[in-house]
Amino acid sequence: MTSEIICIGTELLLGSIVNTNASFMARHLASIGIDVFRENTIGDNPKRLAEAIRLAASRSDIVITTGGLGPTVDDITREAISEACGLKLILNKNVRAEIYKILNRKKYNRSAQINIHRMSCLPGRAEWFKNKYGSAVGFAVKCGKALLIALPGPPHEMEPMFTDEIIPYLKKKGYAGNYVIKTKAVRIAGLPESSVNDKVKDLLSLTGRTTVGIYVQPGIVDLKITTKAENENKADKEILKIQNIIKKRIKRNIFGYDNDTVEEALGRKLLRKNKTISVAESCTGGLVGDRITNVSGSSKYFTMGIVAYSNDVKIKLLGVSPETLKKFGAVSKETALEMAEGMRRLSGTDVALAITGIAGPTGRTKEKPVGLVYISVVSGGRKVVNEYKFVADRKGVKFRASQAALWAALRIL
Amino acid sequence: MTSEIICIGTELLLGSIVNTNASFMARHLASIGIDVFRENTIGDNPKRLAEAIRLAASRSDIVITTGGLGPTVDDITREAISEACGLKLILNKNVRAEIYKILNRKKYNRSAQINIHRMSCLPGRAEWFKNKYGSAVGFAVKCGKALLIALPGPPHEMEPMFTDEIIPYLKKKGYAGNYVIKTKAVRIAGLPESSVNDKVKDLLSLTGRTTVGIYVQPGIVDLKITTKAENENKADKEILKIQNIIKKRIKRNIFGYDNDTVEEALGRKLLRKNKTISVAESCTGGLVGDRITNVSGSSKYFTMGIVAYSNDVKIKLLGVSPETLKKFGAVSKETALEMAEGMRRLSGTDVALAITGIAGPTGRTKEKPVGLVYISVVSGGRKVVNEYKFVADRKGVKFRASQAALWAALRIL
Repeated sequence: MTSEIICIGTELLLGSIVNTNASFMARHLASIGIDVFRENTIGDNPKRLAEAIRLAASRSDIVITTGGLGPTVDDITREAISEACGLKLILNKNVRAEIYKILNRKKYNRSAQINIHRMSCLPGRAEWFKNKYGSAVGFAVKCGKALLIALPGPPHEMEPMFTDEIIPYLKKKGYAGNYVIKTKAVRIAGLPESSVNDKVKDLLSLTGRTTVGIYVQPGIVDLKITTKAENENKADKEILKIQNIIKKRIKRNIFGYDNDTVEEALGRKLLRKNKTISVAESCTGGLVGDRITNVSGSSKYFTMGIVAYSNDVKIKLLGVSPETLKKFGAVSKETALEMAEGMRRLSGTDVALAITGIAGPTGRTKEKPVGLVYISVVSGGRKVVNEYKFVADRKGVKFRASQAALWAALRIL
Repeated sequence: MTSEIICIGTELLLGSIVNTNASFMARHLASIGIDVFRENTIGDNPKRLAEAIRLAASRSDIVITTGGLGPTVDDITREAISEACGLKLILNKNVRAEIYKILNRKKYNRSAQINIHRMSCLPGRAEWFKNKYGSAVGFAVKCGKALLIALPGPPHEMEPMFTDEIIPYLKKKGYAGNYVIKTKAVRIAGLPESSVNDKVKDLLSLTGRTTVGIYVQPGIVDLKITTKAENENKADKEILKIQNIIKKRIKRNIFGYDNDTVEEALGRKLLRKNKTISVAESCTGGLVGDRITNVSGSSKYFTMGIVAYSNDVKIKLLGVSPETLKKFGAVSKETALEMAEGMRRLSGTDVALAITGIAGPTGRTKEKPVGLVYISVVSGGRKVVNEYKFVADRKGVKFRASQAALWAALRIL
C-alpha cells in the first residue's frame, strides 16, 4: 500500500509553525507497513488544494490530509475534497449532535449555528472519527480508487485520533501491509562520516527488504537499519544480523543504539565500573557538566566541575603552573593536561576531564585558529591529550568539543 | 513570484526527523515578498524525485530543493535535477578545488576521489554557493522557465547558506517581490503568558497589514509584530509604532528583540556597567555557565563557575556550612544564599549567582517536589533568593532554572 500526506495551512507555508504532523503520521504508517511516498504542504487556497488532492488520489492508495477542518473561513478542506472527489457535502446529524455535545454551551448565536452546520457536512458517505480534544471530527471516504482520510491540524487533536482511531481503522479495512517495518540506529562516535561510509559501503547500497542509511549529526554518525518483514520476530532477527556485521567492522566506536547519547553511555560505564568523574572546562564553559548531569542519577558518579574561564582560575584552583601558561598558552596540550591533573587532585575522582580551546569567533592567533581544542583525560596511571580542529560557529565548536570530551572519557574506561 | 520547496530524504518520510528546513526557508522567502505555494517531501527515489522536480518547475517561478547533495549512494539530487531539467552533469573544477580545500586531508583514496568528483559535477551551467559548514556546495540553474536552487539538507549547513547567499542572490536576480514583509519579536521574561496577553489584548486582535502574535517558549514570551509594506522604510515605521505601544505597557520585562537571548542581554549589561560575574551551580550542572559563555566576548565578564554537585564540594569549595546543609538541606534558600556568597568570595566577581534544586525524576522528598529550585544572586550589598516550582522533565527543569537565574542576574543589575 502506498500513501501520501497533504498538510493544509498557510501558516505552515509562511514558516510560522514547524510541521510535526507529517513525521508523526509517517512514523506510525511505516510501523504498520504502509509506505509514505510523498508529503505535500498546501496553503488555504481552494483551487490548489483540490488540485493536490486530485493528483494524490490518482497515484496513491491512501491520501491523508491534516488541517482546514475548523469553523473559520480559512478552513476549506471539506469543500476542496468535495470538489476534487466529486462528492456532495451532506449533513451528518450524528456529527452535528457530537459537535453540540463537545461545545456544550448554553446558547448558540446565528453564526455559531452556521459554523456547526458547516462542520457537520461531510463529503459523500464518509465515516467519521471522534475528536477527544477539539470540535472538528475526522472522516474517511473513497475518492476514486483511493481512500481519503481528513484529520484536524492541531497536533494534540490529530495525534490521539491517529493512533487510537485511524491506525486500527486502516488495519480493519485491510490497508495495513502484511508486514512490519522496524528500524534500529547504531550510533558511532570518534569516526568521520567518510570513514564509516568506507567501512560499510556494501551495506549502504543494499536494496530490498533491508536497507542501511547513514545520518550525520555533530560528533555522531548513525547507521540506521530498516527492515521490512512478515512479523516482529523475523524483523528482529534480520536487524540483529546486520547489526552484528556493523559491530564487527566498527567495533568500539559504537557507543549505543537508537536515542542513546554519549553521556548516557558514559554514565552506564562509570556505574558499572564503580568510578567517579569530574570536569575542568575552559572553552566549553560548563556544557560538558551540563550534558553529564542531563542523565538522571548522574549524582552517583559526577561530583564536581570547574569552569576555569580565566587563567587566574586555572592557576589558583586547578594548579596549572604560570610557566606552562606563559610558555605554551592557555590553549595547549600542556595546559589541558595540567588542568586534568589539577582537577583530579582537587576532586579526588577516578577520572578527570579537561577541555581548553578557542570557540571563536574572536580569540584566534596566527598559530591558533578558531576551533582548535585540546582535550585531556586522566584515569588511573593513564594520561591522554588530543588535539582537535573543529570547523563550526561558536556553539558548534563548544558542542563538538563536549562530544569529543565525553567520548574521550568513555574510551579511557 | 511564486516558489515551491522540495525536501528530499527517506528519513523525512519515515518520520525519523522533523523537517525544519521548509519552515525556515518559507519564513525567509516571505520576508522578501516571495510566496511559497507548495512544499513537497520526497524520498531518495530517483524516479519520483525527478517527477516532482519536473512538475514543480512547470508551475512555479522558483523551485528550491534541500537534501541529497552528499557523497553517499543515497544522494541522488544532482542526478534527478539533471534528468528532470534535461541538463548534463558537468565537472566544475572550481567546485572540486573548493571541496578539496574544505576536506583538507593529506591523502585521498580511490573512493574518496570518486565521491569528490561526483560532488563536483553540477547540472548545466549552474552557479554555485559555498558551504561554510560542510563539503556539499549549493547551486542554482535554470530548469525550463523556473529557477532551480539546490541546497544541502543539514540545517546547520543550509541555514547560513540560505540567509548569506541565496536571499541576496534572489534579490540581485530580481526575484524578490514588490513589497516587503518585516517582523520583529519583542522578547519578554519574568511575566507569564496570561499577564502579557491581558496587557496587549487589543494588539493581538489587529487585522490587516499589521498583526501581532503571541508565542511562548520556556521562560520567554514573544510578541511578534508582522507588517507588509511597499518598502523597508514604511515597514520599519509601522513596526516602531507598535513596538512603542508594547514598550509602554510591558516596561522592564522586555529584555531584547528577535533572537536576543537573556544571556546576551546580561552580557551587554555587565559590559556597560563594567562588572564581572561567576556562577555556582548544583542542579543545572553547568548549563548556566554554558549559556553565559555562548556569548562571544564573555571572557571579559565571566571568570569562573563551580559545579557543586556533591555536598562535599558545596562545603569545601564554596564554604557552605555543614549545619546549614544538615538543617535546611542542599535544596533550600539558606544553601542557595551561602553558595552565592561563597562563590563571590572565591571568585572576587561583582555579581555571583547560585542555583540549587531538584531536576528529577528522582531525588524528591515529601516536602521537596521535583522542580523545586532556589536561585540566589548577590551583588554589592544586595542579596536575593527566590523560590521556583517548575513543572517539566529533567532537561526542562534545568533549562527553566537557567533562564530564571540569568533573568535574576539581569534584574539585580
